[in-house]
Amino acid sequence: MATDNLTAVLHGIEDLRLEQRPIPEIASDEVLLAMDSVGICGSDVHYLTAGRIGDFVLTKPMIIGHEAAGVVAKVGKSVKHLAEGDRVAIEPGVPCRYCDHCKRGKYNLCADMVFCATPPYDGNLTRFYKHAADFCFKLPDHVSMEEGALLEPLSVGVHACRRAEVGLGSKVLILGAGPIGLVTLLVAQALGASEILITDLVQQRLDVAKELGATHTLLLDRNQSAEDIVKKVHCTMSGAPDKAVDCCGAESSARLAIFATRSGGVVVIVGMGAPEIKLPLINALSREVDIRGVFRYCNDYSAALALVASGKVNVKRLVTHHFDITETAKAFETSRYGHGGAIKVMIHVQPRDANNPVKF
Amino acid sequence: MATDNLTAVLHGIEDLRLEQRPIPEIASDEVLLAMDSVGICGSDVHYLTAGRIGDFVLTKPMIIGHEAAGVVAKVGKSVKHLAEGDRVAIEPGVPCRYCDHCKRGKYNLCADMVFCATPPYDGNLTRFYKHAADFCFKLPDHVSMEEGALLEPLSVGVHACRRAEVGLGSKVLILGAGPIGLVTLLVAQALGASEILITDLVQQRLDVAKELGATHTLLLDRNQSAEDIVKKVHCTMSGAPDKAVDCCGAESSARLAIFATRSGGVVVIVGMGAPEIKLPLINALSREVDIRGVFRYCNDYSAALALVASGKVNVKRLVTHHFDITETAKAFETSRYGHGGAIKVMIHVQPRDANNPVKF
Amino acid sequence: MATDNLTAVLHGIEDLRLEQRPIPEIASDEVLLAMDSVGICGSDVHYLTAGRIGDFVLTKPMIIGHEAAGVVAKVGKSVKHLAEGDRVAIEPGVPCRYCDHCKRGKYNLCADMVFCATPPYDGNLTRFYKHAADFCFKLPDHVSMEEGALLEPLSVGVHACRRAEVGLGSKVLILGAGPIGLVTLLVAQALGASEILITDLVQQRLDVAKELGATHTLLLDRNQSAEDIVKKVHCTMSGAPDKAVDCCGAESSARLAIFATRSGGVVVIVGMGAPEIKLPLINALSREVDIRGVFRYCNDYSAALALVASGKVNVKRLVTHHFDITETAKAFETSRYGHGGAIKVMIHVQPRDANNPVKF
Amino acid sequence: MATDNLTAVLHGIEDLRLEQRPIPEIASDEVLLAMDSVGICGSDVHYLTAGRIGDFVLTKPMIIGHEAAGVVAKVGKSVKHLAEGDRVAIEPGVPCRYCDHCKRGKYNLCADMVFCATPPYDGNLTRFYKHAADFCFKLPDHVSMEEGALLEPLSVGVHACRRAEVGLGSKVLILGAGPIGLVTLLVAQALGASEILITDLVQQRLDVAKELGATHTLLLDRNQSAEDIVKKVHCTMSGAPDKAVDCCGAESSARLAIFATRSGGVVVIVGMGAPEIKLPLINALSREVDIRGVFRYCNDYSAALALVASGKVNVKRLVTHHFDITETAKAFETSRYGHGGAIKVMIHVQPRDANNPVKF
Repeated sequence: MATDNLTAVLHGIEDLRLEQRPIPEIASDEVLLAMDSVGICGSDVHYLTAGRIGDFVLTKPMIIGHEAAGVVAKVGKSVKHLAEGDRVAIEPGVPCRYCDHCKRGKYNLCADMVFCATPPYDGNLTRFYKHAADFCFKLPDHVSMEEGALLEPLSVGVHACRRAEVGLGSKVLILGAGPIGLVTLLVAQALGASEILITDLVQQRLDVAKELGATHTLLLDRNQSAEDIVKKVHCTMSGAPDKAVDCCGAESSARLAIFATRSGGVVVIVGMGAPEIKLPLINALSREVDIRGVFRYCNDYSAALALVASGKVNVKRLVTHHFDITETAKAFETSRYGHGGAIKVMIHVQPRDANNPVKF
Repeated sequence: MATDNLTAVLHGIEDLRLEQRPIPEIASDEVLLAMDSVGICGSDVHYLTAGRIGDFVLTKPMIIGHEAAGVVAKVGKSVKHLAEGDRVAIEPGVPCRYCDHCKRGKYNLCADMVFCATPPYDGNLTRFYKHAADFCFKLPDHVSMEEGALLEPLSVGVHACRRAEVGLGSKVLILGAGPIGLVTLLVAQALGASEILITDLVQQRLDVAKELGATHTLLLDRNQSAEDIVKKVHCTMSGAPDKAVDCCGAESSARLAIFATRSGGVVVIVGMGAPEIKLPLINALSREVDIRGVFRYCNDYSAALALVASGKVNVKRLVTHHFDITETAKAFETSRYGHGGAIKVMIHVQPRDANNPVKF
Repeated sequence: MATDNLTAVLHGIEDLRLEQRPIPEIASDEVLLAMDSVGICGSDVHYLTAGRIGDFVLTKPMIIGHEAAGVVAKVGKSVKHLAEGDRVAIEPGVPCRYCDHCKRGKYNLCADMVFCATPPYDGNLTRFYKHAADFCFKLPDHVSMEEGALLEPLSVGVHACRRAEVGLGSKVLILGAGPIGLVTLLVAQALGASEILITDLVQQRLDVAKELGATHTLLLDRNQSAEDIVKKVHCTMSGAPDKAVDCCGAESSARLAIFATRSGGVVVIVGMGAPEIKLPLINALSREVDIRGVFRYCNDYSAALALVASGKVNVKRLVTHHFDITETAKAFETSRYGHGGAIKVMIHVQPRDANNPVKF
Repeated sequence: MATDNLTAVLHGIEDLRLEQRPIPEIASDEVLLAMDSVGICGSDVHYLTAGRIGDFVLTKPMIIGHEAAGVVAKVGKSVKHLAEGDRVAIEPGVPCRYCDHCKRGKYNLCADMVFCATPPYDGNLTRFYKHAADFCFKLPDHVSMEEGALLEPLSVGVHACRRAEVGLGSKVLILGAGPIGLVTLLVAQALGASEILITDLVQQRLDVAKELGATHTLLLDRNQSAEDIVKKVHCTMSGAPDKAVDCCGAESSARLAIFATRSGGVVVIVGMGAPEIKLPLINALSREVDIRGVFRYCNDYSAALALVASGKVNVKRLVTHHFDITETAKAFETSRYGHGGAIKVMIHVQPRDANNPVKF
């Protein structure tokens, strides 16, 4: 096992450095993890380029990374379900456990959430990282470390589909074929949706969606009217979808989601764009089309793991690029500019070995 | 019993006439009703002054009126639960019974709904009116005909509170103290809400709300910032409300509802204003505050009747003015301009007698 | 097209006859169907052998059959979604459309339901049969008539899984690998269940379940204690299932379902056995394990069709035997005694041709 | 403030002693409470007389008492919402905060729950008691300490009504007019139930129920057939109830609850009697009448407090007897034998003063 603790630290806008950090001490309900795989998320890139997301502002150096899996290196004394050497996926947010949201099973709304790589809290693109043991999910042997890291975006898809109440025979419209659109597609299929149409502005992304099982794809261009697109959606699908999941966050896509959805249906908006958006509200209200947001995930990791472990969902196709932690800068560049058709870029803290059979 | 059929017919904008119409023939699943009390709704006034509401456009003469109660005068041969002389409240919309929405218990979304005084369908401000028997609710002797007519707006309040999932210990913000705000207040109390704050621009309306049991009232003026109002709401209530019901439909009130509501809460918008509204969408989405509309009601009449019949809710206070059908013009004027502090204006097709003891 | 109307009529216990019946006249909301495929259900056999099921007693001759698909031969004048020649699956129960259950979307509880081959109502093992058009579901070209007939048992599986709230990552225990156990298995998979264990007393039925995708099978014998079986279930699965669906209806299986299910889980009982059953009620109550029944289905046919049409579920494996309507007696015998490993026995009213391309 | 720590300790069957115990030390998330009022529950009496309830067996001395309110005497350093002198109601169970049930908002099902006066955990009939601060609910000044103690049984009523989904216009049958039946009655009223019938074998208890607002009461005697009682229930109420809450736990009452409830309704069983019960299961299953248990409460205390604080519910009528802690033996005797029409017996650790104005 490595004994140094090489760590990717974001010091400010466009200032991401690799540096040594002390190996953390663990509390009795924590584990120390030798990190293995860490995916790059759009939000990581956003902190690099803008130094903030909404009200979360980088004011001091912060370790980056939150889509991660690692190997248990040390176990807190009150931890029972994990042992040294266990390979785990890391749910990156740990709530307070005391507030009303936590007690009611909506811990993603906890105001005191400690979430990896959300200022002021450190992330886990580092060799050694400690985490609350109950937010580490043991991976079966046949699930790779990369798949473990991918449970993070997959959990967003799970949460989105649950918020949308996707179920047997649902007809689902997904707007946007980026990583979140694709995981939403995978989960909607696993939940029994019978028809899924996915849209994007880029044909290449739609090709991947098709490969992953989308029933229909629809290439949009910015000059089409919402009315025209809605007509196309309704013609391509067998009528209006009863669920729409907007994974873009643009005003135009939120509007489209509302116009396209069937009376009594649900629009879930995952992507978040401008703080203020002009909406055709009466259209939604008078047809009782509900509008719901998605904030991370909550009690979704175990379902995401079950989907992958049971083979119902194959997330491997999402990973297009691999880098060693020492190549972090290049990894971020690839993700940022979508070089080489990048969908998901994976950084390997340990030498890449999909299933990490050498347990150090 | 009267044998003529004096009827209030809207021929066009600002053209409401009283005229004789033939007494309708009934089908086997219908009843003929001798109408008694008909309340005036904002939508009735709107058709009078604008000739349309959204896509519903008056293109031929239409009988006005849809908040109504009457007495069964004739019974279709397959009707079992009603007899001649029964006093009934009339749920004014009859759905197709065949479509998917009807079969799934969301008949208010039925595209083929026949709804009183919504073009092209006639209403029931008339002496004799026929209606589907199963949408007539028999009133107990101690419930007056006026209360029967008031079940219509009360059902909107029931539907709004159900959509908002108001329950035990809910803290509810109601925006607007007009008739719909007031019935929402009454229903929220009956559902166990522990704290209800209601706002308006007119102190007189807030006084009525207070009298009806609002925990707090808050007089708004148009110059206050949303931020200031939210602070006041949070200070006056013990923290943020978990439910907000907007009964105005203005952009400002919809925005206020979102800003004020607690994470994980629900915003229900009953009032409908401009077709396009600018919303602080990220604020709602990132806190998983759901946005839901209310379209009329659905399976709510029996609960509304139970509330009135059991004495849990007293709707009588809402009626401020009474007119005979021959005074229909004056009644509409009173409602339209809010003369004399008008809240709900009631038109009596039969000589007024709160409980209609003379069963003709 | 045949012009006679050969029909299978149950005259009494062990008295099933083929006879000619007049071709029915249709009402404006009905269609006349040239029947194609009719499956035999356990209840059909039960009426043949016992003349009753619970309070439903055969008191006069009744046409048998209710798992069926046919071709539209004539269309009522108010029917819009179907045309002559359309191939349809038939949802066999038509509710009153007027009662509270119907209006609330629970039409399966309608007290005035007219249900095929449930006394006193006729079924559809006949050449010509009329049915409410809105309870006929048009089949896409690639879905065979037999698959159409199989939507009936499949809808029971859909309803059972919905009542159990099977979802992403559910761990499901299914008791009994007969036709209903198998369709429940298929639906649970389609809904994202991650682990499904199915039990039976007959290895051959478990082999089919395995072939259809059960994660685990468990052969029971009548001498095992519930305690031992529960231990085996928990060891075989990764802990206690959160859902159990009892497709047997025996006292022992209902008890097993309760004991095995995780706290906070759901036990759904589809099969119905003796009217009185001794249950370990405190065990269920103190762990908040809910007990729910399944009565037929309700708004489940379209999802069942979507599952088959989208290829998510393959029901063809369930059909083990085929007979012509003229061989009805033999068909019933095969189903009754399980000859030749019979699972589902299909009777063909038209000469067998899986997709009925000759539209007569 | 008292500095001794007089404590009621159950040493074994019929062996309840008053003795001194050390004053507990608190952790950073705890508060020390000077106990004020402690109600006696049927389970307390059961431990005294039987030494066990189901699998919970008294194997070493245990402090009794769990329906309690006290005054904060010391505050752990991480506690923010409470200060010394605050008067609080105590939710007596503290879950592990780490398991799946805790994270999903069903902490009452936590297997590692530490619950007052449930072996092996101590209760709070003692002068000084420590408790997790977040399970202490600050009482407004106008809510008395006794009312605070009564939030415990009231929360059972809240949980029962939530499990039954009692709502606007519900028709509720409550079996048993003991303390739990009565709190269920109070909560059902507050939730908008329009008709409530309560049964008992003792007229005196029904008189209290009537006084508390039951719509109907029905005196049962043990010789009536279930069929006869059901008829009476349906005649007295306007038809079949849609909810039944059994607060007895006898086989006869569970059976009655099932027979009496409307198709599609819910039977909630709060009282628990014999481990094995013979049920008319087919009757429930074929009418989709769901059977649900109630295990304590979960996220119900704040609603219970809101009900009392807002004046919607008056629990004071439930307290029939008061004793000082030094009279504990007599208090238990009164509760055990129902002396003097005892409903709820309250023990005062501080000299009785309903609102404890002397804050020590």
